[in-house]
Amino acid sequence: MKRILSLNAFDPNAATTQAGAIASRLQRRAKLFGAGSVLFYRQPLEFVRGQGCWLFDAQGTPYLDAYNNVLSVGHCHPHVVEAATRQLGLLNINSRYLHPGIIDYAERLLATLPTAGSSPRLSNIVFTCTGSESNDLALRLADRYTGARGVIVTQAAYHGNTALVSQVSPSSHRHWQAPEHVRVVPAPLGGARDFATHVQAAIDDLARSGLALSALIIDSIFSSDGVCADPTGFLRAAIEAVHRHNGLFIADEVQPGFGRTGSHWWGFQRHGVEPDIVTMGKPMGNGYPIGAVVTRPEILKSYCDDVGYFNTFGASPVTAAVGQAVLDVIEREQLIDNALRVGAYLREGMRKLAGRHASIIEVRGAGLYVGVQMKSAGDTTAGTIINAMRDRRILIGAAGRHGDVLKVRPPLCFGSSHADNLLSALDEVLTQMDASFT
Amino acid sequence: MKRILSLNAFDPNAATTQAGAIASRLQRRAKLFGAGSVLFYRQPLEFVRGQGCWLFDAQGTPYLDAYNNVLSVGHCHPHVVEAATRQLGLLNINSRYLHPGIIDYAERLLATLPTAGSSPRLSNIVFTCTGSESNDLALRLADRYTGARGVIVTQAAYHGNTALVSQVSPSSHRHWQAPEHVRVVPAPLGGARDFATHVQAAIDDLARSGLALSALIIDSIFSSDGVCADPTGFLRAAIEAVHRHNGLFIADEVQPGFGRTGSHWWGFQRHGVEPDIVTMGKPMGNGYPIGAVVTRPEILKSYCDDVGYFNTFGASPVTAAVGQAVLDVIEREQLIDNALRVGAYLREGMRKLAGRHASIIEVRGAGLYVGVQMKSAGDTTAGTIINAMRDRRILIGAAGRHGDVLKVRPPLCFGSSHADNLLSALDEVLTQMDASFT
Repeated sequence: MKRILSLNAFDPNAATTQAGAIASRLQRRAKLFGAGSVLFYRQPLEFVRGQGCWLFDAQGTPYLDAYNNVLSVGHCHPHVVEAATRQLGLLNINSRYLHPGIIDYAERLLATLPTAGSSPRLSNIVFTCTGSESNDLALRLADRYTGARGVIVTQAAYHGNTALVSQVSPSSHRHWQAPEHVRVVPAPLGGARDFATHVQAAIDDLARSGLALSALIIDSIFSSDGVCADPTGFLRAAIEAVHRHNGLFIADEVQPGFGRTGSHWWGFQRHGVEPDIVTMGKPMGNGYPIGAVVTRPEILKSYCDDVGYFNTFGASPVTAAVGQAVLDVIEREQLIDNALRVGAYLREGMRKLAGRHASIIEVRGAGLYVGVQMKSAGDTTAGTIINAMRDRRILIGAAGRHGDVLKVRPPLCFGSSHADNLLSALDEVLTQMDASFT
Repeated sequence: MKRILSLNAFDPNAATTQAGAIASRLQRRAKLFGAGSVLFYRQPLEFVRGQGCWLFDAQGTPYLDAYNNVLSVGHCHPHVVEAATRQLGLLNINSRYLHPGIIDYAERLLATLPTAGSSPRLSNIVFTCTGSESNDLALRLADRYTGARGVIVTQAAYHGNTALVSQVSPSSHRHWQAPEHVRVVPAPLGGARDFATHVQAAIDDLARSGLALSALIIDSIFSSDGVCADPTGFLRAAIEAVHRHNGLFIADEVQPGFGRTGSHWWGFQRHGVEPDIVTMGKPMGNGYPIGAVVTRPEILKSYCDDVGYFNTFGASPVTAAVGQAVLDVIEREQLIDNALRVGAYLREGMRKLAGRHASIIEVRGAGLYVGVQMKSAGDTTAGTIINAMRDRRILIGAAGRHGDVLKVRPPLCFGSSHADNLLSALDEVLTQMDASFT
């Protein structure tokens, strides 16, 4: 499969029209980062300041950020910065010493998760530093608890960058071949009703190879697959199949979590399902590296009975202070409601554009996670649009197995006037493209 | 093998004499963290503030920290806190946008590494968030570059917490069985001269199983094995054997790096060897989650040709600002020299104690990484000492395959008066123990 980034990456071998200082930094960076140096855009951008939904370059030119979901409550939110600053100056130490902060934070965070039944369910938490570390641990918890190895993922999934997690992240490989214990299912882009059928077929196929099911790991907004949100509830039958075969459902909430989908704290809640393991990352610390795994006590215990998992930076007093501040802002500024309202407004606007521009096939999403399925006119439609939007100082990205979906996921403080900016710029870009196609 | 922590961990099932508020937090924490909740000390400690080499509990009682090497330039160093604060308020974004800060930091950091020959050597860097992520990537780079799978580690090694790295971290498992592709060698505790012989034997043993050598991964201070530092240069013959068999040498500098061993920036330099890959973590951001992998361009390229490694939080402008501030402090406060001088003073004092207390067998170490080999009188000598030192408000730890080595690795601003405190408390503890044994 093709790596999505290639649609939207700076090519260091291509001629650049960048000015002197930037050209020099591009060279120094290429020398330092080598083959690992990837930059967005055919003409890369350099920012020096961020605030709310805005990024500013060295000349003070503002760019509207409709892409970066890590800074979920807004770039450099003063309440989060203040909390980090205060705690960094007081104490920053590992969690093998007691500290009240992390206990308070863990309780508050777990309270955002649904509790069902009377037995303890999603009541244990392990803090990590990244979503990758979270998914790496989650897959091991599932293997240990089920005694099985089979894992099911979607075709263009991305769950992180560790060795184990890369095995279940087709989208980060140029030439991905499923490891023996991994099966892929198509993301429910066309017919969501078929999703459970595909999951069942993958379980059966694992069984034919003598492999029992350990876990289905799903990002419930299917972000790198190209954003699939509707109809709500379509995940339920798939999860039931997983549970019937004694597998676990790992909800990777790194993308849809912390209110982004607009109706709930967590993406899986839109589907009325309860995961066995929930993983968290990116927006959790609004840029400060925080991740977590939440699960049932018996699942954690089966792993910890043999392996002493410890994460040096996870669960520090700074983790707690920053994490609490992020929750404060989500609540005080009613960002979940905002995601719902502005997300609906943005999709409605996109659909109007679809009526005027044949290059838009479908608009999908929930809350402030929006995917716009473009017609495939060569490989470069989405890449061209993204770069044209960049030239209009608006940041969006691409997703999907063929890189043909525009990915729009701004900070949750994105307002309807920001949406208007984005929509009118996109209208211009599409109009120009329509003209060049006729 | 036995997990070292069990010597020095709070047992939630044991009766506690902790006061009400702490007892309540212990209960809440146990409920939240479940089987993953591990606390130091039979009577856990709760701190609320840190400064330099000191930690303070809620009553303001100071504890001398001779254990925590993450806060390597001192708890809450104002220069580092100020740098973090400034940058968190300006911009904190991923590295797919250009930013001058990370380029400057990467150049300065790479300049601390030795450069040999005329071809580019350790000149490429990949930023991560943790030492675990660094070692996870390093092992993959080695596999891809060599096309081989065999890995050699020491008997009680600890290289991190991801799935891949746990496979080469015997010390984090209760019942560790070497995976098919992993061989262990004894740490050079007794005869350093034999180390290369053991490594060669492991290479031969891999070959007998049809496995070629990918990498020897070594923490050059052998921290969790019980601290082995001398004679300098003993690693050389082992590395030569590795290179003769086309394997790579991964220097895990998470423990010995950033000047801790007193004579150089990097632990491997004491041995006059050059690694193929260097991994960094813990002290890099003085508590802020920063890690890195440094390697030769061709090694990084062979991996990135197929896999798009990206680390969301790694290489942010905050990484750069904090990392730079840590280097500033190491240089301005001459902490490498301090580690050398105070480390020598501390070991000299330990050796005097050894002359008076038969329970000390040997004092080992370099700079401010000190291991004190205790006589095994039952399993609990080291555990008893650590807890008795805690009661005297001094923090140290345990290491070694049998947990019979005292591990002393204070912040690098540790002075000779701090060393005097520690030595006199240890003298008291050992005197009491001597009395109870006769």
